[in-house]
Amino acid sequence: MTDNDKFFSSENQEELKKLMAHYRCAIMEIETKFRVLDEEFSLRHDRNPISSVSTRLKSRESLLDKLQRKGLEVTAQNIENNINDVAGVRVICPFTDDVYVLARALARQNDIDIIRIKDYIENPKENGYRSLHIIVAVPIFLANETKKMRVEVQLRTIAMDFWASLEHQLRYKKNTESEEISAELLSCAKISADLDSRMNSLRSKIYG
Amino acid sequence: MTDNDKFFSSENQEELKKLMAHYRCAIMEIETKFRVLDEEFSLRHDRNPISSVSTRLKSRESLLDKLQRKGLEVTAQNIENNINDVAGVRVICPFTDDVYVLARALARQNDIDIIRIKDYIENPKENGYRSLHIIVAVPIFLANETKKMRVEVQLRTIAMDFWASLEHQLRYKKNTESEEISAELLSCAKISADLDSRMNSLRSKIYG
Amino acid sequence: MTDNDKFFSSENQEELKKLMAHYRCAIMEIETKFRVLDEEFSLRHDRNPISSVSTRLKSRESLLDKLQRKGLEVTAQNIENNINDVAGVRVICPFTDDVYVLARALARQNDIDIIRIKDYIENPKENGYRSLHIIVAVPIFLANETKKMRVEVQLRTIAMDFWASLEHQLRYKKNTESEEISAELLSCAKISADLDSRMNSLRSKIYG
Amino acid sequence: MTDNDKFFSSENQEELKKLMAHYRCAIMEIETKFRVLDEEFSLRHDRNPISSVSTRLKSRESLLDKLQRKGLEVTAQNIENNINDVAGVRVICPFTDDVYVLARALARQNDIDIIRIKDYIENPKENGYRSLHIIVAVPIFLANETKKMRVEVQLRTIAMDFWASLEHQLRYKKNTESEEISAELLSCAKISADLDSRMNSLRSKIYG
Repeated sequence: MTDNDKFFSSENQEELKKLMAHYRCAIMEIETKFRVLDEEFSLRHDRNPISSVSTRLKSRESLLDKLQRKGLEVTAQNIENNINDVAGVRVICPFTDDVYVLARALARQNDIDIIRIKDYIENPKENGYRSLHIIVAVPIFLANETKKMRVEVQLRTIAMDFWASLEHQLRYKKNTESEEISAELLSCAKISADLDSRMNSLRSKIYG
Repeated sequence: MTDNDKFFSSENQEELKKLMAHYRCAIMEIETKFRVLDEEFSLRHDRNPISSVSTRLKSRESLLDKLQRKGLEVTAQNIENNINDVAGVRVICPFTDDVYVLARALARQNDIDIIRIKDYIENPKENGYRSLHIIVAVPIFLANETKKMRVEVQLRTIAMDFWASLEHQLRYKKNTESEEISAELLSCAKISADLDSRMNSLRSKIYG
Repeated sequence: MTDNDKFFSSENQEELKKLMAHYRCAIMEIETKFRVLDEEFSLRHDRNPISSVSTRLKSRESLLDKLQRKGLEVTAQNIENNINDVAGVRVICPFTDDVYVLARALARQNDIDIIRIKDYIENPKENGYRSLHIIVAVPIFLANETKKMRVEVQLRTIAMDFWASLEHQLRYKKNTESEEISAELLSCAKISADLDSRMNSLRSKIYG
Repeated sequence: MTDNDKFFSSENQEELKKLMAHYRCAIMEIETKFRVLDEEFSLRHDRNPISSVSTRLKSRESLLDKLQRKGLEVTAQNIENNINDVAGVRVICPFTDDVYVLARALARQNDIDIIRIKDYIENPKENGYRSLHIIVAVPIFLANETKKMRVEVQLRTIAMDFWASLEHQLRYKKNTESEEISAELLSCAKISADLDSRMNSLRSKIYG
């Protein structure tokens, strides 16, 4: 019996299936919040602050890994209490300003709790990674109860996303850990940040 | 200047555009509620109570007509206060039981107000039309405020929907008001209701 | 090593992955053909002959089963030569007439070969199943070659589809093989066929 | 009667509606060709050469304008014979190499005619615009005939697309024709081209 089998053949299998369904619901609620904000901002400013939204649910393998690294048993309860990014929503914006406008509008909503904010745009990671990460708790309305679920929201510009997806591909390729490649990747991150900053100020010169 | 022009060149044009955007947001919120319920019921019962969901926003023409028939001026305020079905969400279910299960789960949610229920399944219209209509008020989360908007939710089975769409096509065709056609349409509505009732009891014999 | 493992860890694993990708392409080509026909018919007749289109790719398990029953080895070549319904496209139409109109339009296209037609509408299966099944071969345009792939197209009305999906659910439930249930299912199939025939003639009375 | 009215109340109104439907069909065929190529390349190289595909149909207003500038009457025949970009398909790729790989694969297909290629990547426009434009003729399979329609395919990278959408927004804003803004926009185009070139060579270092 592999770890993976254990994951879903354990006694709490039903509990785990239910939990993952609840995370899927939480993802839908957050997605809707951004679609509503996009609708409202398009109206006010004649342009869309959101270029695209994508979502993901952490795989069983990643959840197992994460629990094992924390030395925790595989139970629904442990997942819900200890892992913040089971559910993820990624919002891609044209401009850096849009990222912060959307983040503030989300934070202001009274049905949502902000658990934690990490601003990798102000303070990029060492390898060059930029993004705004927010862990929120959002209510989901089930047939017989209302429940709050945690979701990791990642907001970034088109340029940040393009860089991140290349970096992600390289990380899973062999022989790509050379210093030369890391240096070139970091240099691309800087050009990308420069482009974002110029495009953003060009935009604000015109829209004010 | 046509009535239609007046509608959107009036002083309150901006107000009207904003109102329609808010109704679009309300539609998204209701759609999400049904997607969440579908997720939950699929989990519990291994089958989807929702076959499809469609949405519509009343056209400017219909809104104008309705206000004029009520002798009201064309203002955002008058639309919001006097018209319940500006925003519409139609939910198609396989079985009659599903219609009521979903309706009860929606009614139970504490962020929603039930304004009015009309049960045309229990009491079909004279021409044979069957559906469950519920007017609800749902909160939408805007950047700076939360606001409640009215939405008409129509729940019906696949068979009810098929009949209704044929009836709708005929209504807009010339020379279709003959008694013969009305009688045949009513007869189809009855066969359709009979089929729903048999399929529903066949289903509950097995799933309990 | 399970049969399932053998399926994809065999030497021809790469060949099998490629074959399944080609079937996915064939599905896209057939879907596009129906979207084009829907566009054209909506224009000519002011109504859509297609209510919805869904697609499916046969699972590895079903392919294995089918090859084993035929006493054939699991190779890409054997699948391609011996199984006609690896790729499936289901087209749901409002009316029985639409089924045949679409089937004729598809058959007439000169880039398509018709391999086989089974008309379960004219001649329903014993249990009451009705549908029109057509096996076609359709060209797919790859980067370096053009290749013909087989696809099973199933055309049916909304009423036929509703009945078939209930029947499908029952088949996979225990204790549902009772004669009483089979009889009731057959009776529903007959009511459903009666409804289709009345709705169809009502429609043609008006549209001619 | 405005020009716009003339457009669709002219005797050839029916012809124009039919023509636009045929262009919609041509768009579907081209979209499918790119979805098929994406499927094939993902298989071969484990990564998607297509980031997104969008489509557009030229508006009546633009068609009217274009015909008037050419001194031509508003007829379906004149549109079909004289305007190459009634139907447009835009393909966004991660890397510059992907643009040319897809272009070559499209050009090689024997059911397609290449009418004209303009390479604004090799030779950017004066304002900094980069993209590869290809006019093709593609067959559409109607119920009773096969017909070739022209479509403008625009291929560009994510970075090119981001720049182009900002430039497009600025063009429709007042007071944005200043030399300062044009210079800054051109400078952004150059940084964007530099980023594309570095990301592309980083990628080919790893994937070969």
